[in-house]
Amino acid sequence: MSTTPTAPEREMAGPDLETIRAAHRRIASHIHRTPVMTSASLDAIARTRLYFKCENLQKTGSFKIRGATNAIFSLSEEEAARGVVTHSSGNHAAAVALAARHRGTRAWIVMPSNAPVAKCKAVESYGGAITYCEPNLAAREATAAEIIRRTGAVLVHPYNDDRIIAGQATAAMELLEDVPDLDFILAPVSGGGLLSGSAIAAKSLRAAIRVIGCEPKNADDAFRSLAAGRIETRSLPSKSAGALDQPDTIADGLRASLCERTFAILQRHVERIALVTEEEIIAAMRQVWERMKLVIEPSAAVAVAPVLGRQLDAESKKVGIILSGGNVDLTAPPFK
Amino acid sequence: MSTTPTAPEREMAGPDLETIRAAHRRIASHIHRTPVMTSASLDAIARTRLYFKCENLQKTGSFKIRGATNAIFSLSEEEAARGVVTHSSGNHAAAVALAARHRGTRAWIVMPSNAPVAKCKAVESYGGAITYCEPNLAAREATAAEIIRRTGAVLVHPYNDDRIIAGQATAAMELLEDVPDLDFILAPVSGGGLLSGSAIAAKSLRAAIRVIGCEPKNADDAFRSLAAGRIETRSLPSKSAGALDQPDTIADGLRASLCERTFAILQRHVERIALVTEEEIIAAMRQVWERMKLVIEPSAAVAVAPVLGRQLDAESKKVGIILSGGNVDLTAPPFK
Repeated sequence: MSTTPTAPEREMAGPDLETIRAAHRRIASHIHRTPVMTSASLDAIARTRLYFKCENLQKTGSFKIRGATNAIFSLSEEEAARGVVTHSSGNHAAAVALAARHRGTRAWIVMPSNAPVAKCKAVESYGGAITYCEPNLAAREATAAEIIRRTGAVLVHPYNDDRIIAGQATAAMELLEDVPDLDFILAPVSGGGLLSGSAIAAKSLRAAIRVIGCEPKNADDAFRSLAAGRIETRSLPSKSAGALDQPDTIADGLRASLCERTFAILQRHVERIALVTEEEIIAAMRQVWERMKLVIEPSAAVAVAPVLGRQLDAESKKVGIILSGGNVDLTAPPFK
Repeated sequence: MSTTPTAPEREMAGPDLETIRAAHRRIASHIHRTPVMTSASLDAIARTRLYFKCENLQKTGSFKIRGATNAIFSLSEEEAARGVVTHSSGNHAAAVALAARHRGTRAWIVMPSNAPVAKCKAVESYGGAITYCEPNLAAREATAAEIIRRTGAVLVHPYNDDRIIAGQATAAMELLEDVPDLDFILAPVSGGGLLSGSAIAAKSLRAAIRVIGCEPKNADDAFRSLAAGRIETRSLPSKSAGALDQPDTIADGLRASLCERTFAILQRHVERIALVTEEEIIAAMRQVWERMKLVIEPSAAVAVAPVLGRQLDAESKKVGIILSGGNVDLTAPPFK
């Protein structure tokens, strides 16, 4: 017995495999096909077979260029001519700036006044025009809205957008193309763009694959959301907007919360969310730097920590991991 | 007019391409075929096209496993049964330990009492038996000689050995297989095993290629040797053996001096030695970590610094660089 999905149900299903393949064709000439790496020594620690999809080696140093490129190259000529805008202090900002340059249009990037200098420089190096604002979500959204009013620029949201999700999904699609018989796939979760896209791509290509989201214990809103069956935001001592921007985790890329769109996809496809401590994140990050000689950022290490800590029932299994990014302050690594 | 080389001349010519190919067949199943990576942002800085042969991603974290494996797998059954010995505080030590394990024999490693803990742990993790000695060359050689007297073990010299040179040469051979039309090839020089092997492989496969050795200004003995036409050792304030072990450079893998065998090969094939300052080494290392997300050690950065500083007449040319290794103390990177 089958029923025709209603329009909202179709939307909440997220992009399908054909849409993801179309995204891949759209972005392929603007991104790297990143390598899949392995490590005998990490396999020995995890007692499994690990396949690392190296999005830290991606243009702009993270997977975010995939979604940003798909969204911006999906715009009509008329839309693109108006330019694009986003608010972000992290990898999405640089990705939007570079994708806009590739499309030949302007990018306005709203960044908090306390954003790291390196992130601001990256945005500038790709030609993004930065507008600084107070470091809270309300100020960011108001500043972006003001730019839209003034310029007509198109908002490129970091995850609440099927074009973004389809773009992020292409990393998992490539990984499954290279290693078709994965038993597990792991990705970090923040707003859920990467994880929901990875889940759709992986499940579409291999129905038996087990999709695991990975999250810091100190920012466990996705874990609690899936447990509760409704979106939970971060539980923090203070509910002020300023505090919401700064949960207590070294994984600075994982500070957003799910939206309805990504939550619905995760509910359908994700087996569970693995939680890891700050110590586990740092230890996993160090193992990847030391053994694999790859610079990854703490948010990427969040998806490595569960296997090194043998949290999964994955002995001798084949486990794919999306190493989401490698943008980190090199002057002060958190290793002792 | 051709003359038949005398026996010493033949020896000083080093291994030929067929010998290098045989070495590659011998070691292929015991090493990684490392990737060749590129970077649009480093190309922009260097104003050239760079091809990085990533021996930092090699087993044991450096190219040294190539030569050690070739030497140890070239031993007769009888020789191999006696075990192998070397003295080294660096990457050659770990390489000999792992290659011996692969061959199923013992490795005695003589290390100075002040060797970094990480290096000692690496040797132990590969099953090498460490004998500590005073931190000077005389003590190292005496301790190794004593082990040889006691056990009959075979000495595996880090560079004064055609089997080692042929093994190290396989990295450049692979690079030229992947990128046949290189205009330049750069490698760091210390005892000269990597550079002489790279030079023979590269010149044999592409006669027009220009081979550049790279050396810290603060340990410029290869530069001075080629200028003088005879082997010069390091010029240091003190001529004591202890001081000889510690030239004033962050590139801790480049503290040895040439031997007759490697010097003769460099004289024939190397166009020049590019010298770089300590500041240039650190800046190049940082660019590779930051832009390429690859952990490389200072000795590897020595071969990157000349192109980033545009020392070569290489504008718009294709330049191959051997990234020799990635073993570095992560708790204290030299970045400010």
